[in-house]
Amino acid sequence: MAEQTQRPITIIAGPCAVESEEQLSSVAETIREAGLSWLRGGTFKPRTSPYSFQGLGDEGLSILSAIGKRFGLSTITEVVDVAHVEMIDKSVDCLQIGMRNMANYELLKAVGNATAKSGKHVLLKRGMAATISEWLAASEYLTTAGSTHVMLCERGIRTFETATRFTLDIAAVPIVHKLSILPVCVDVSHPAGQSDLVPALAKAAVAAGCDALMIEVHPDPPHALSDGPQQLTLSQFSQLVDELRTLAAALGRELR
Amino acid sequence: MAEQTQRPITIIAGPCAVESEEQLSSVAETIREAGLSWLRGGTFKPRTSPYSFQGLGDEGLSILSAIGKRFGLSTITEVVDVAHVEMIDKSVDCLQIGMRNMANYELLKAVGNATAKSGKHVLLKRGMAATISEWLAASEYLTTAGSTHVMLCERGIRTFETATRFTLDIAAVPIVHKLSILPVCVDVSHPAGQSDLVPALAKAAVAAGCDALMIEVHPDPPHALSDGPQQLTLSQFSQLVDELRTLAAALGRELR
Amino acid sequence: MAEQTQRPITIIAGPCAVESEEQLSSVAETIREAGLSWLRGGTFKPRTSPYSFQGLGDEGLSILSAIGKRFGLSTITEVVDVAHVEMIDKSVDCLQIGMRNMANYELLKAVGNATAKSGKHVLLKRGMAATISEWLAASEYLTTAGSTHVMLCERGIRTFETATRFTLDIAAVPIVHKLSILPVCVDVSHPAGQSDLVPALAKAAVAAGCDALMIEVHPDPPHALSDGPQQLTLSQFSQLVDELRTLAAALGRELR
Amino acid sequence: MAEQTQRPITIIAGPCAVESEEQLSSVAETIREAGLSWLRGGTFKPRTSPYSFQGLGDEGLSILSAIGKRFGLSTITEVVDVAHVEMIDKSVDCLQIGMRNMANYELLKAVGNATAKSGKHVLLKRGMAATISEWLAASEYLTTAGSTHVMLCERGIRTFETATRFTLDIAAVPIVHKLSILPVCVDVSHPAGQSDLVPALAKAAVAAGCDALMIEVHPDPPHALSDGPQQLTLSQFSQLVDELRTLAAALGRELR
Repeated sequence: MAEQTQRPITIIAGPCAVESEEQLSSVAETIREAGLSWLRGGTFKPRTSPYSFQGLGDEGLSILSAIGKRFGLSTITEVVDVAHVEMIDKSVDCLQIGMRNMANYELLKAVGNATAKSGKHVLLKRGMAATISEWLAASEYLTTAGSTHVMLCERGIRTFETATRFTLDIAAVPIVHKLSILPVCVDVSHPAGQSDLVPALAKAAVAAGCDALMIEVHPDPPHALSDGPQQLTLSQFSQLVDELRTLAAALGRELR
Repeated sequence: MAEQTQRPITIIAGPCAVESEEQLSSVAETIREAGLSWLRGGTFKPRTSPYSFQGLGDEGLSILSAIGKRFGLSTITEVVDVAHVEMIDKSVDCLQIGMRNMANYELLKAVGNATAKSGKHVLLKRGMAATISEWLAASEYLTTAGSTHVMLCERGIRTFETATRFTLDIAAVPIVHKLSILPVCVDVSHPAGQSDLVPALAKAAVAAGCDALMIEVHPDPPHALSDGPQQLTLSQFSQLVDELRTLAAALGRELR
Repeated sequence: MAEQTQRPITIIAGPCAVESEEQLSSVAETIREAGLSWLRGGTFKPRTSPYSFQGLGDEGLSILSAIGKRFGLSTITEVVDVAHVEMIDKSVDCLQIGMRNMANYELLKAVGNATAKSGKHVLLKRGMAATISEWLAASEYLTTAGSTHVMLCERGIRTFETATRFTLDIAAVPIVHKLSILPVCVDVSHPAGQSDLVPALAKAAVAAGCDALMIEVHPDPPHALSDGPQQLTLSQFSQLVDELRTLAAALGRELR
Repeated sequence: MAEQTQRPITIIAGPCAVESEEQLSSVAETIREAGLSWLRGGTFKPRTSPYSFQGLGDEGLSILSAIGKRFGLSTITEVVDVAHVEMIDKSVDCLQIGMRNMANYELLKAVGNATAKSGKHVLLKRGMAATISEWLAASEYLTTAGSTHVMLCERGIRTFETATRFTLDIAAVPIVHKLSILPVCVDVSHPAGQSDLVPALAKAAVAAGCDALMIEVHPDPPHALSDGPQQLTLSQFSQLVDELRTLAAALGRELR
């Protein structure tokens, strides 16, 4: 396993979906006050049902980009369509491939080609039934296209257990470190499915040696337009960051 | 459950991938001699590794279309990219959405829009970790776009068992009939993963009441460019069709 | 795969649990009228919660034994405790090892030793998360102890799908026939979890080539003390047997 | 969730199986030098194949008991047979119910009855396909019998992923704390299946808030009679304990 001491842990935080400038700026302010640097927010949302909220689209992307600049935060959003790749590549710092599209190889090739030119980052989430081996193979669609800043993201796999939304495969962290040179992020909100489990999963991910953490936070979770139950409030998030900082320090690492 | 007696069972057969005109015509001839009407063949192949055979693409599509016409067979191939939808919609009778793309909703919308105009059929495979509920929700991306000939296709789910490539969820047949008005096909080759299991699974699917069966057949499986082990030879296929015809007759149904 | 033509298909039917002499005799009468020969009934019931009905125990065993003799039916019940093996071995024709105890090797050894002497049959259910390989290995605890009439029983495995109680692994039938000389039964009631799915699963199992079928039937399912929703009524059972007989005949087989 | 600060973390270490007095005493010495207090060792081993090493049985139990006393360590071993309960209850401080027997309710009742009288501890491992809800229900077979020192033990669940032996369900720790008053241990060796993953999983379990950790350690893993690949060497174990102690301190907890 690669020597991880001293490697900072990147915290990627923000709401499930960008809902308004006001919503996103309150989250961005909290992130900046916590001394962190990345802001996430869904703009084009892939939803299981065609009748669910599908994201603000272009407008959401403009808000995300503007708020990122205003608060000096790097930004990340999911891309779900080859036709959006160019626009999203211009608007944010990192393009996310979601779990539903891990094996949408045409999208991966398009994102690989775009980011090979732009130098932007790519975050590749693991499919909910993908083996680690298939996930690493999918990442090669990006790297063979020339993408140079690819990060993998474990986000829970589908199992028989229903007490959580997905089963976080915490062992994916050391295994990816063993088999690949790519860094690995852990999305702790989607496997949890409920916010009170998020702190324990976030600490476990840090202790397991992750390179980044993705945490959903919303100024008013009960009124969120998507995934409300799993999002932390602003104050829960700030408190968790304090606890994670202490934990990281004990491991010779720091948050950014 | 809908009354199924007298409803014919559609057999969709052909190679995993279109490899050449010669290969495909030998399969088409066998299908026609068996009194059947549908020919399948992969042209744009989504593969786990970027280094695997990716299909013949446009050339494969031309071969499939030409052979279909020559032998009077309806044709089906998988579409993996929104940019290909129009071309494939013009070339074949049914567009297949593969299991990797079941939740690629942008592709579903594009296929839904195209087939709403063309009147072509769509076959929607179940994602390997999709619940039946999520699969039915995905089909609504097609039907709400106006697609009127959508068929669902069970093709095995991912479980812990490794003796088969996927676990065929045979109960999906009566459950879909209970919850939906859409017909349901069963792909018996992918769950089997090895050709000697195909006959038992095909018979089970017919007995369970499926509306269609998808079976991979190749004139020379050991030299197939993809998925050789699970493809039947031409003579194995002809024999299986005979057995299925007897079985179907006992259930008051016939093959087409 | 062994030649199966002409091998009869044994139907093992009866209630989830023996509840009374009256209940069991009405089922036994229906089985005899259908021309079948095996009666099942749980007497010592392993239940997930200690607060659920645990079976009638000794009294249930006496009822099962008496009703079997009165109607000329062979009997089977589950054994959950090494201390009960001798008594159950004397009372019934076949000892069932349930899915919870597939890897309770001390119980397997005890049942193996007892049936080596008595010549009684053993039915070994597959654990809900056991691979076929582990299930076959478990059967060797019986056969190496000298048991000579061991039958395996597929009863559904645990997966992420919740539309059924368990996912029936229909491919287990041809795989066991390929890897083992032991016959294979399919319990179609437990994977279904609801009675309206039972006919489709039963037909699929017959078409897949099973050697025996286990079907739960109860004179009054809504008032059953356990597993009511998945049990067929007497008339549903009789109708299903008629349909299965027609199907079996088309496959060159008969029910017994 | 219960306030966990200040609650010590119990480390339960030792070989997969007791193989000899020499083997076990070298492990016990390492545990004592590390300032820890619990020694584990399998004596009656449930093995998937009847042809694998089945443990030293009575002799192993005598060795474990003697070494525990000599080094002042509490001892734990697995019980697989109702007939052994009394003897094992007399010989060790904690009786382990293994994952294969989580739903062997007759064994649970016997262990519950014995420990209700003796006051000994019980460790109940989660079945590899048991939901957390079923696992908690199983624990009630112990507590309703009067057992007062029951600890649950997460040890990985069976999923489709094959890169690890089992998938450690790290979220089980906060969920058990939320739903139950019972403490929860994490066995990190069985899910890992290979020793180099053990440190990351052990740290994750501590960070997630576990009450105890079970770690397999052997003086010579390559020559172990069972599960060699997943056992730590003595020096790897000592180093890991040092790292865990630092981590625990950052969380306001200490090892014992």
